[in-house]
Amino acid sequence: METKTMNIKVEKAKTSKIGQVDFDNLAFGNVFTDHMLVSNYKNGSWGVPEIVPYQPITLDPSAKIFHYGQSIFEGMKAYKDEKDAIWLFRPMDNCRRLNISAKRMAIPEIPEDYFMEGLKALLKLEKDWIPQTPGSSLYIRPFIFASGNGFHASPADEYMFIIAFAPSGAYFSGKVKVLIEEKYSRSANGGVGFAKAGGNYAGQFYPTQLAVDKGYNQVIWTDDNTHEYIEEAGAMNIFVRINDTLLTAPTSDRILDGITRKSILKIAENKGIAVEERKIAVSELIEAAKDGSLKEMFGAGTAAVISPISTFGFRDVDYDLPETPNSYAALFKKRITDIQYNRAEDNFGWRFKV
Amino acid sequence: METKTMNIKVEKAKTSKIGQVDFDNLAFGNVFTDHMLVSNYKNGSWGVPEIVPYQPITLDPSAKIFHYGQSIFEGMKAYKDEKDAIWLFRPMDNCRRLNISAKRMAIPEIPEDYFMEGLKALLKLEKDWIPQTPGSSLYIRPFIFASGNGFHASPADEYMFIIAFAPSGAYFSGKVKVLIEEKYSRSANGGVGFAKAGGNYAGQFYPTQLAVDKGYNQVIWTDDNTHEYIEEAGAMNIFVRINDTLLTAPTSDRILDGITRKSILKIAENKGIAVEERKIAVSELIEAAKDGSLKEMFGAGTAAVISPISTFGFRDVDYDLPETPNSYAALFKKRITDIQYNRAEDNFGWRFKV
Ligand SMILES: Cc1ncc(COP(=O)(O)O)c(C=O)c1O
Ligand SMILES: Cc1ncc(COP(=O)(O)O)c(C=O)c1O
Repeated sequence: METKTMNIKVEKAKTSKIGQVDFDNLAFGNVFTDHMLVSNYKNGSWGVPEIVPYQPITLDPSAKIFHYGQSIFEGMKAYKDEKDAIWLFRPMDNCRRLNISAKRMAIPEIPEDYFMEGLKALLKLEKDWIPQTPGSSLYIRPFIFASGNGFHASPADEYMFIIAFAPSGAYFSGKVKVLIEEKYSRSANGGVGFAKAGGNYAGQFYPTQLAVDKGYNQVIWTDDNTHEYIEEAGAMNIFVRINDTLLTAPTSDRILDGITRKSILKIAENKGIAVEERKIAVSELIEAAKDGSLKEMFGAGTAAVISPISTFGFRDVDYDLPETPNSYAALFKKRITDIQYNRAEDNFGWRFKV
Repeated sequence: METKTMNIKVEKAKTSKIGQVDFDNLAFGNVFTDHMLVSNYKNGSWGVPEIVPYQPITLDPSAKIFHYGQSIFEGMKAYKDEKDAIWLFRPMDNCRRLNISAKRMAIPEIPEDYFMEGLKALLKLEKDWIPQTPGSSLYIRPFIFASGNGFHASPADEYMFIIAFAPSGAYFSGKVKVLIEEKYSRSANGGVGFAKAGGNYAGQFYPTQLAVDKGYNQVIWTDDNTHEYIEEAGAMNIFVRINDTLLTAPTSDRILDGITRKSILKIAENKGIAVEERKIAVSELIEAAKDGSLKEMFGAGTAAVISPISTFGFRDVDYDLPETPNSYAALFKKRITDIQYNRAEDNFGWRFKV
C-alpha cells in the first residue's frame, strides 16, 4: 500500500511526560503520549494534518458533538520488535473502516494519505512510548468528531480529526465471563451498528453495568428482533468452537466488521480448520454446552486481542467452558501476535513497517 | 410543582451581544444568549449549578464525549406574554425525561431542583432575549455530556450539565414533505430510541440527507424489523387523521415519548376527538390516501410545534395530503400555543410561570 510522502508540520512539546509513566503497570487507555496529530475540516475540506503537543480541545457549548453524537473512531496498536522496528497490523483496513463509518455518520471522509502519513509521522516521533513489556502495546486512537456549532439537528460544518496514543496494558484482566443479553440491544437493522460510531458504545454502558453487577465482564448482544442469535460483544467479535468447527456470526449492518475477526477467518482457512460464518442460535450454544460439543468461546478485537471466555450466562444459568488443550484461541493468538510483533513470517501481507 | 429555592451564583458577562441580534430574522439555534448555567459532576456528585458568561468548553482529547457518544439533551421553549411575564410548558416533564435518558445512557441523574431552579434563574437573567416576534421563541437546550477522560469503553467519571438558550425562528420554513424510510432505521428494540441520546440524532443525518437530496424535509422512520409500521420523524412524533379519527404510534423503547404528543392526546380527549394509539401500517396510509379517507398528517414536537405535512413519499411515489378545512393540526396548534403564550385558559396545569 503506497501513500505519497507529505510534509507534516511538527510543534514539539517543551517537556516529555514519559519519565512519569510506569510501563510495567499500564492500565488501558489512561496515559497519553506527548503529541497528537490534528486536522481540521473547514469550508469543505480537511486541512493538512499537523503534529502538536497533546493538549486540551476548546469548543463552543453548541458544538454538535455535545448534542448529536456525531463522532467516529478507530482502534489500532503499534508493536515494537526486538530490533526496535515499529510495526502496524493492517492499518489501511482501519483507515478504510473509518471512512465507512464516516459516510454512515454524515462525516466527511479523511484522505487516506492524511491518515497514513500522519500516523507514521506521529509514531516515529513517539517511538519511545511503545511499550515492550509483554502484553502491553501502544494503543492508537484515530477519531473524528463534529466541532461545528448549532442546535439544529443536522450535520456539522466543521470537524476535527485527531490521532492520539495511549501506551496500554491488557483490556481484560483475568478470565472473561459474558452474559447473553435478551432485553437490551446494541443495534438496529438499517442502523449504525457496523460503524464505529460513538453512540453505539454509550448505548451499551447501562446494560453492561447491569451485567457487571451480576459478575460478568461483558455482554454478548443478540439480534434486536428475536434475541435468538448471538451477534458480538461490546468491543469484540465472538467465535465459538463446536467440536472442531469454528463458528462466527456473519457481518451485517448491525455488526462491526472486525479486523481481528477477518484475520482469524483467514488463518483458520490457511490451517484447514472448518469454518462456518452463519447465524448462531443461543439454543444451539446451550445444547452444545450440555452435550459437551462446545469446546471454546472467545472474543476477538484489537484491544482485547483474543480473549478466551470462561463462562457464559443466559437466563440466570451459567455455562462453564471446558479447558480445551491445543485451543484454537491459543493458536490464533500466537499466530496473530507473532505476526504483529514480527516474530514469525507473515504470509498474508498484514504487517506494515513504519 | 414546588422546588426549593436555591442560591445560584452568577458571574455576569462584561458586555451583552443582544444589540447585534436581528430578532426579526432568526434562524433556528445559531444565536446564543450571554450566559449559561453549568454544573459539574465530580467525585460522585453534581455541584451546585452556577451561571457564567456563555463561553467555550475545554476538554482533554480523551474526554469520553469525543469517543463514546455519552450525551443526552432536552429541548424546551420559553414564551413571553403581552405583559412580559415568562412562561414554560410542562418543564418538569423535560426534567424527568432528561433523567430517564440519563439512566439509559449510564449518566448520573441531575437533581430536579438544580434543573428547575437553575433554569428559572437563567431565564430571569436572560429575559430580554425572549423574542416576541410571532413564530419565534427562546429555545432552551439543557444537555449533559461525558467530560471524564479515558479510552476504555466504559462510563465516564465526570460529566457537565449545561443549559444554554438560543432565540430562534421556525424549525421548518414552509411545507413539510416527508419520506417513509424502508432501508435505514432510527432505533432498535431494546435500544436507546426512547432516550434523547446524542447518537440517535447523528445516526439519522445520512439517511435524512439522502431524503433531502430527493426533495423531502424529513424522514418518517419505520420499525427496524418489518419496516411496515410508521414510528416517528427525526425530531417530531407523527399524527395521522383518517376520516375523523386521530392516530399515532404507541410509544415504545424505540420512540421518544414526546411532550407535544401527549399534550395533543389530552386535548383530543378533551375535545371528544376519537383517538387510536396503535401501530399504523404504511399500507393503511397508502390505502387511505388513495380512497380519500386520509385527511391530515402532521408532526408534533417542541422545536417543530405542529407541522402539517403536505406530502409523504414511499417507494418513489408521492402522496399529497388534501387541504382539510378546520384541520386538527390548526386546532391543536392554536390550543397549545394559546396555552404556551398565556392567551387562553389552561385547564391542564401545563403552563408554568417563571
Ligand atoms: C463493537 C466492536 N466489535 C468488534 C471489534 C473488533 O474489531 P477489530 O478486530 O477491528 O478491533 C471492535 C473494536 O475493536 C468493536 O468495537
Ligand atoms: C426523536 C424525537 N421525537 C419527538 C420529539 C418531540 O418531543 P417533544 O414534543 O417533547 O419536543 C423530539 C424532540 O423534540 C424528538 O427528538
